[in-house]
Amino acid sequence: MDRLIGAIEAGGTKFVLALARGDGTVLAETRIATRTPAECFPEVTAFFEQASAAHGPIASFGVASFGPIDVDPASPAYGTFTTTPKPGWSGARFHDVLTRFGAPIVVDTDVNGAALGEWEKGAGQGCRTLAYTTVGTGIGSGVLRDGQSLMGFSHFESGHIPVPHDRAADPYQGFCPFHGDCLEGLAAGPAIKARWGQSLSEMASPADEVDLVAGYVAQLAVSLVLLHMPDRLIFGGGVMKTPGLIPALRRKTEALLGGYIKAPQLDPGLERYIVGPGLGDEAGITGAIALGRKALG
Amino acid sequence: MDRLIGAIEAGGTKFVLALARGDGTVLAETRIATRTPAECFPEVTAFFEQASAAHGPIASFGVASFGPIDVDPASPAYGTFTTTPKPGWSGARFHDVLTRFGAPIVVDTDVNGAALGEWEKGAGQGCRTLAYTTVGTGIGSGVLRDGQSLMGFSHFESGHIPVPHDRAADPYQGFCPFHGDCLEGLAAGPAIKARWGQSLSEMASPADEVDLVAGYVAQLAVSLVLLHMPDRLIFGGGVMKTPGLIPALRRKTEALLGGYIKAPQLDPGLERYIVGPGLGDEAGITGAIALGRKALG
Repeated sequence: MDRLIGAIEAGGTKFVLALARGDGTVLAETRIATRTPAECFPEVTAFFEQASAAHGPIASFGVASFGPIDVDPASPAYGTFTTTPKPGWSGARFHDVLTRFGAPIVVDTDVNGAALGEWEKGAGQGCRTLAYTTVGTGIGSGVLRDGQSLMGFSHFESGHIPVPHDRAADPYQGFCPFHGDCLEGLAAGPAIKARWGQSLSEMASPADEVDLVAGYVAQLAVSLVLLHMPDRLIFGGGVMKTPGLIPALRRKTEALLGGYIKAPQLDPGLERYIVGPGLGDEAGITGAIALGRKALG
Repeated sequence: MDRLIGAIEAGGTKFVLALARGDGTVLAETRIATRTPAECFPEVTAFFEQASAAHGPIASFGVASFGPIDVDPASPAYGTFTTTPKPGWSGARFHDVLTRFGAPIVVDTDVNGAALGEWEKGAGQGCRTLAYTTVGTGIGSGVLRDGQSLMGFSHFESGHIPVPHDRAADPYQGFCPFHGDCLEGLAAGPAIKARWGQSLSEMASPADEVDLVAGYVAQLAVSLVLLHMPDRLIFGGGVMKTPGLIPALRRKTEALLGGYIKAPQLDPGLERYIVGPGLGDEAGITGAIALGRKALG
């Protein structure tokens, strides 16, 4: 008997909900807009109740969520949002809405979920150590070792690393409320819109702008290499869809590394080392399904 | 019966060799100058042969070594130095000199060994995730999770992260042959000597110089927090012995973090979060003994 997995990709703007077979086949799927938990959670319950009535009992749940959220399975607050400025979400817990189904629940960050999806079925297959970074509304990274996401006292927050910022070349002061010109403050989608009034994709000939953003993101690529030594770096998210950005990121990263790291993983030009997601926009829900598969034991 | 551990702390200037009981009691110890393997290895053999003759058979070896070195137990080249400018060391392998004793061998980096020593008996006790950084001739970090050192396709190379460098305030161009003004190029011992003609400890009133170095090292502290979320950061090595440097590092790190990370581990002032080694100069050999204890199984 193939046991059914309930999967939630919880993003800052939308939730994707799916009911899937253990092999990943999606039986039912819907999208809901992200509002407060009081508004979203009843819709989550309703979807899984209807899907379960149609297809059978749910054996486990996998949740790949925006953060900050407690993703330590050993913590009593596992699955609970910590301090987030998003109205209503601080203290909200996925278990509150899913416990009624009586199935085990695995919760991880959206980027860790995407990394797992890419590791199982996408561009990260065969990697012992894999880093997945999203550059979109925010910037974040998940790192897997042998398919297990790494964490310390919390999930990582790679978007906020300090980066060299040449104010003569780029006078924009950054938008991060905590750090101003940290990586996210300079290179995430809102920084690009605030600096130039439009996204990179909307610009007619954005070669210089692509190079500037690539240079900032390359600082994170190099930091990931030096502090995690991944077998591959995947860069996804809306900003990374800009034509030419991944090639520029490869050039900037290779220049910053300066030939210091000699390993077969880092091919000349980094074309196999730095790549886009193999699953495209499906990485998130695929990862949530994969998290649910872990809960099946 | 208490089984005996052979331990090697292999540093860039000296090797510390020890024979210890399983509980860490040192029965014999010696130091030899680091030269080529052809010169050092016979002295290593001689020491362990004599120590074993006096105290009994050696049940395991632990080696905490400078790098770059293959520290992946699953690799056929485990324990082999990779590309190092140190004459004779590229391709040298600790197993070549230790296999004759017929005991299992665990090899890790010097910083991973020091981290393990501090985790077991020093300033890192009780930490699930612990980062140990040395700032001396070079800069490197080891990160443990539940007492296991983390790695990707290689051990980490934290010393080479890019850091913001205000050339107006600090015109020194950096000494790293690969990157110029990466962290190690700006803040390791040789950079300090090259910039000011003396070490921080030799200066009469080095407050500004301490602040400058602390600001660079703080970039690594923040990167370690954001990319590993350790429960504590230990900073050792010769440069970190400078009076006032650890307090300055705490101030700079707290300022860079900007209140973004809220966790009980990060106490106000970071006095419990950023600390010096509890074992002082003994962290290295204590770590090598701890590595040998792992090999006992």
